[in-house]
Amino acid sequence: MTKRYYFLFILLFAFTANAQNIQWTQVQPGVWKAVIGKPEAYDLLKASGATPATTGLQQMGKADFPLQQQDISARIVDGKVYLRFPLQKEEQLFGFGLNFQTVYQRGKILQLHVDHFGGKDNGRTHAPTPFYVSSKGYGVFVNAARYINVYAGSAVRKDSKNPPVEKDRNTDKSWASRPYSDAVEMLVPAGGVEVYVFSGPTAMDAVRRFNLFNGGGVLPPRWGLGFTQRVKTLYTADEVKAEAKAFEEKGFPLDFIGLEPGWQSKAYPCTLEWDKTRYPDPAAFVKEMKEKGIRLNLWTNPYISSAASYYKDLLPYTGSHTVWTGVVPDFTLPQARNTVFGQMKKSQVDIGVSGYKIDEVDGYDHYLWPDVATFPSGLSGEQMRQTFGLLVQRYTADIYHQKNQRTYGLVRASNAGGVSMPYVIYDDYYNHEDFITALINSGFAGVLWTPEARASKTAEEWLRRMQTVVFSPMAMINAWSSGTKPWSYPEVADQIKAMATLRMQMMPYWYSAFARYHFEGIPPFRSINLEEGFSYEPKKESVNKNLEENPYAEAVSKEIKDQYMAGDALLVAPLFAGQTSRKVVLPKGKWYDFYTGAYAGNGEVITVTPGLDKIPVYVKDGSIIPMMPPMLHAPKKGEKVDLEIRYYGEKPGQYKLYDDDGETFDYEKGQYTWRDITVTKDNNGQLKGTISAPVTGKPNTVGNVTWKWMGK
Amino acid sequence: MTKRYYFLFILLFAFTANAQNIQWTQVQPGVWKAVIGKPEAYDLLKASGATPATTGLQQMGKADFPLQQQDISARIVDGKVYLRFPLQKEEQLFGFGLNFQTVYQRGKILQLHVDHFGGKDNGRTHAPTPFYVSSKGYGVFVNAARYINVYAGSAVRKDSKNPPVEKDRNTDKSWASRPYSDAVEMLVPAGGVEVYVFSGPTAMDAVRRFNLFNGGGVLPPRWGLGFTQRVKTLYTADEVKAEAKAFEEKGFPLDFIGLEPGWQSKAYPCTLEWDKTRYPDPAAFVKEMKEKGIRLNLWTNPYISSAASYYKDLLPYTGSHTVWTGVVPDFTLPQARNTVFGQMKKSQVDIGVSGYKIDEVDGYDHYLWPDVATFPSGLSGEQMRQTFGLLVQRYTADIYHQKNQRTYGLVRASNAGGVSMPYVIYDDYYNHEDFITALINSGFAGVLWTPEARASKTAEEWLRRMQTVVFSPMAMINAWSSGTKPWSYPEVADQIKAMATLRMQMMPYWYSAFARYHFEGIPPFRSINLEEGFSYEPKKESVNKNLEENPYAEAVSKEIKDQYMAGDALLVAPLFAGQTSRKVVLPKGKWYDFYTGAYAGNGEVITVTPGLDKIPVYVKDGSIIPMMPPMLHAPKKGEKVDLEIRYYGEKPGQYKLYDDDGETFDYEKGQYTWRDITVTKDNNGQLKGTISAPVTGKPNTVGNVTWKWMGK
Repeated sequence: MTKRYYFLFILLFAFTANAQNIQWTQVQPGVWKAVIGKPEAYDLLKASGATPATTGLQQMGKADFPLQQQDISARIVDGKVYLRFPLQKEEQLFGFGLNFQTVYQRGKILQLHVDHFGGKDNGRTHAPTPFYVSSKGYGVFVNAARYINVYAGSAVRKDSKNPPVEKDRNTDKSWASRPYSDAVEMLVPAGGVEVYVFSGPTAMDAVRRFNLFNGGGVLPPRWGLGFTQRVKTLYTADEVKAEAKAFEEKGFPLDFIGLEPGWQSKAYPCTLEWDKTRYPDPAAFVKEMKEKGIRLNLWTNPYISSAASYYKDLLPYTGSHTVWTGVVPDFTLPQARNTVFGQMKKSQVDIGVSGYKIDEVDGYDHYLWPDVATFPSGLSGEQMRQTFGLLVQRYTADIYHQKNQRTYGLVRASNAGGVSMPYVIYDDYYNHEDFITALINSGFAGVLWTPEARASKTAEEWLRRMQTVVFSPMAMINAWSSGTKPWSYPEVADQIKAMATLRMQMMPYWYSAFARYHFEGIPPFRSINLEEGFSYEPKKESVNKNLEENPYAEAVSKEIKDQYMAGDALLVAPLFAGQTSRKVVLPKGKWYDFYTGAYAGNGEVITVTPGLDKIPVYVKDGSIIPMMPPMLHAPKKGEKVDLEIRYYGEKPGQYKLYDDDGETFDYEKGQYTWRDITVTKDNNGQLKGTISAPVTGKPNTVGNVTWKWMGK
Repeated sequence: MTKRYYFLFILLFAFTANAQNIQWTQVQPGVWKAVIGKPEAYDLLKASGATPATTGLQQMGKADFPLQQQDISARIVDGKVYLRFPLQKEEQLFGFGLNFQTVYQRGKILQLHVDHFGGKDNGRTHAPTPFYVSSKGYGVFVNAARYINVYAGSAVRKDSKNPPVEKDRNTDKSWASRPYSDAVEMLVPAGGVEVYVFSGPTAMDAVRRFNLFNGGGVLPPRWGLGFTQRVKTLYTADEVKAEAKAFEEKGFPLDFIGLEPGWQSKAYPCTLEWDKTRYPDPAAFVKEMKEKGIRLNLWTNPYISSAASYYKDLLPYTGSHTVWTGVVPDFTLPQARNTVFGQMKKSQVDIGVSGYKIDEVDGYDHYLWPDVATFPSGLSGEQMRQTFGLLVQRYTADIYHQKNQRTYGLVRASNAGGVSMPYVIYDDYYNHEDFITALINSGFAGVLWTPEARASKTAEEWLRRMQTVVFSPMAMINAWSSGTKPWSYPEVADQIKAMATLRMQMMPYWYSAFARYHFEGIPPFRSINLEEGFSYEPKKESVNKNLEENPYAEAVSKEIKDQYMAGDALLVAPLFAGQTSRKVVLPKGKWYDFYTGAYAGNGEVITVTPGLDKIPVYVKDGSIIPMMPPMLHAPKKGEKVDLEIRYYGEKPGQYKLYDDDGETFDYEKGQYTWRDITVTKDNNGQLKGTISAPVTGKPNTVGNVTWKWMGK
């Protein structure tokens, strides 16, 4: 061995000495786990307390490991874990949290970091879930409560199996600033980590396994899927009552009202105590509202004022830094939980408050504790940042679970582990297009997202926003600042009412979609990329050939990020203010107009001009949509409602209608049914619908059933 | 002790157990060092090889520790160093690297990270120097080759000595989203770190001590301060000769020409070998150009093509990842250095090439190696990212130093430790206002910056840009893409020529200013905030009171970031395209118009309407500006030039004129002089100027001396 080669050998040895031997264990059917190095005691699953939905996972069945194991590598360098997963040429990636502007993630560089969305998909978002899904039908999840760096097919290793071709920029016009990369690489700033791989065979299967492994999706109470209005910050009890009355009188549906900071005696920092000038008798007020069919949701953030009666008890269990001068409870400690959530239970939940909007648990950096913050449990500022949203969701949900009463609220931060939490994410940002892209990505991130309406510059914009709000997990107007009502733009008030009414009529459809989220892991709102028969590759386009302005000749990716699936049957393709027509990409198979049942297309790009009143929605061939009569409030526990079952297209139709009491957790003890609805054609071509009988001893909320053959 | 208090005690103990006892040692006069934990073997000073300029430091003298030591804390948490420094109420902070949009840094949150400037001052920049200066007259430097998180007076600790007042946002209109903070906190992601504190008494003193501790500023060759033009990428030797000829014929000064990627046989990735089709005889070409008074500067980036003749030798000493398919030399290894810099020496420096433009050693992430990259020396991707610019500067500078020949080039990344490097930073970004703010901040970051001109939309913009280029460390047109010449906008060609000529005439002034940078640590281009008699506090203004759009009622800071000092005498206040007049804040003391000597003001805000031809420049009372005759090329070694010494104002004038051979490092062996120039008024009010005699045996380039009493 010459001296040079000997030296080379030493270097190679140094390079590979810390490579980890990865052992993959199937911990649930189709769910594979590897332990790299020495994982930390605290991680996303531990913070959230998520436990696998084993029944759902077992129903999906076992599956082979979806990758070549030797193509995956892990090493510990510089006290951190470096991970590498392979990529194939035609592979596309989705996920990496709640992104707002991009759906296709291959080529991205991100640092997954809980934060508000700051205007750019860079990993900082309300739910930076360290989970990605491949178009090749598998998923990868890194269970670390740390800021994880992701190179999603951007970095190129010298030892790459499929290296990019070297080109001379001086003379080769095909030179590109971003050479081909055949790997996802991740840096986890911890001495060890648990990594999970989810089998397919489809991308949807991987998403389902991820969701089920995290406990399955939330099943909201029925009222949670009704309409909700948030009132101005300093509203009084009387003003809230008047608001509810106005909805009733004008015939607009309403299920819950959100009170903003003014319900508290002090807010920013918060006391979590009622302001007695605005709410002199909270218990009576909450009761009176509930009797009118209106529940109450309370805004808060968890940064506690020195004016709170329990402040001194809490103080030892709070972090080193304040947020808006409020102390930050260390919710991993029972003492902090008992104090804060005990106050919420006693003062609010026990008198009938239905849920919370937990604000500002995300960021941004200028408001939150810094990374140099310490917490009495020993958690770092970083770990607390990545999981604070999980902790507040988990322990507020627990209050309700212990009372056998479902809740459904709002939160501004989540993460992996939060799939089953009864919370919907929202933001201060207000770009309508990006809100829809976030809705698409929520289905990859294990979270729910509402494209809330607050106010609008024009009646047109208001209507366009409300059209998407009613096709989302929470149909909400957030008027904390503006005081906007659904009827605030008189030119479109009738159309808004029609949309809100449609939301209510579709409640059986929405409720069953959420039941599938819970039991089967299928996100109720999700990307068209998870739809069978859909395929699209984002195209790179050179938009600026001026090298002074674009010195690396960067091309821009053209994506489809403005249409989504709502439940199994519906493809929603919103229009935005200023648009009168748009393109819709229909997956393979026949699709029909939601409103008329008319044939729309099959595996093609159509251009539609729906008019201002309509949001384009298309229904998959053979779909069944159960509808209830227009109602101003969700059916109460035990209340029966008639069903109008709509059928679209030509193929035989099959549907599973979910039913339970709609308000409690008795479904966890088997108190629910799935009723089979089928539509077939007899020999004469006549359509025939059947619904299976209710099961004795189980909840049954179905009254009379009628059938509607759409487009016939 | 009750159980509760016992528990509290345990918690407090856990909180403080890892607090570090900080020992401050005066390692140089007025320079204090503390070692926290176990610092890493590799840091910014080691990467750069910077050694203190002890003579300059000794001349400044000893000084007390500028802070209360007990107000500084350090602790090791989560394997990282958490630092805390105090802030007083009226204290302002400057520095934290080459920021582009803000000068006042108090309240900022940054992650110091080598990168190109991405449009926002967030810590990612070409020179994220971990050094800040306080208006109270001290500086702090964290010597870590890591991504350092900085909370520059943003975070609030529970145990703060000066906590912000708690307010109720519900009712208190004075509530602010960013409560008062009395500390700078920093997170250094390493198990230990060296920290330095620089004494004042003034902020300028702290800057000087920092610069001198880093070796003192660069002293460029005289030709480096002349005019430079960069030609189009694929120019041939003949085209370059024609370019030089055109400058000569049109009477535009020119000292060096920059060749862009086309001089290499392949570029992106690079060979560092001449392209023999465009440059058939490099040695003859370089020699011929030099004889015409034109030096050559060569573009490169250090990502090496497999087509390079030395590729196989280099390969074992390169990182795990490629950049544009080129390998990344690990320049901390002598083998990599010998190969790459050996090639540059042999092929280019030895035939007379005067310097380099070293591109793309900054970022951005999509082009550079990822943080999961490994290097054969064992350095992490992060450490290499923070220091790669330092390494290429250091070892290319060494080639020239070994030849006793000064160089002056361009680089796109630096850091602390790089103060004495013969390089100026540039960027692809092109906002003129931000270029000036960067120029201001360069003086706090231990780097030089050029607001290069490339092309412009209008003749007006071109002239405005060129007016600032000539008042900067490098008077450059970077026409790699556009091919723009100084005379490309005929309407303003005469004015441009006048500006370029002025640049040459001022060379004695520039050269002495750089000598003060080198020997005394005074940045040649710097913030007005370092000027005695200047005071300004940025004002917070609520610009958007719409809570829907600005939910936290964030106020915007109004700064002064568009005027700067050029040497000790000149206040430069540029106009930007579209402006016809501007405000100028004059520090206390009398100021005079640079062009006429007319009195301009004293400690006041003046509004000036200088016309298109002029860039407003003001001269401090009693200032002396040495000028030379208009020349097309810088004086050669040994060449004598006449001096016209201009005097402004009323106060007695004192000036130190620096002189040496202008090309070699003989000044390091004492081959230089400072000649005293004084202006006094005799009893009759007659001005009288004197210049001290040249020193025998030392270089003397001064020919005839004439005096000009400006404004008299």
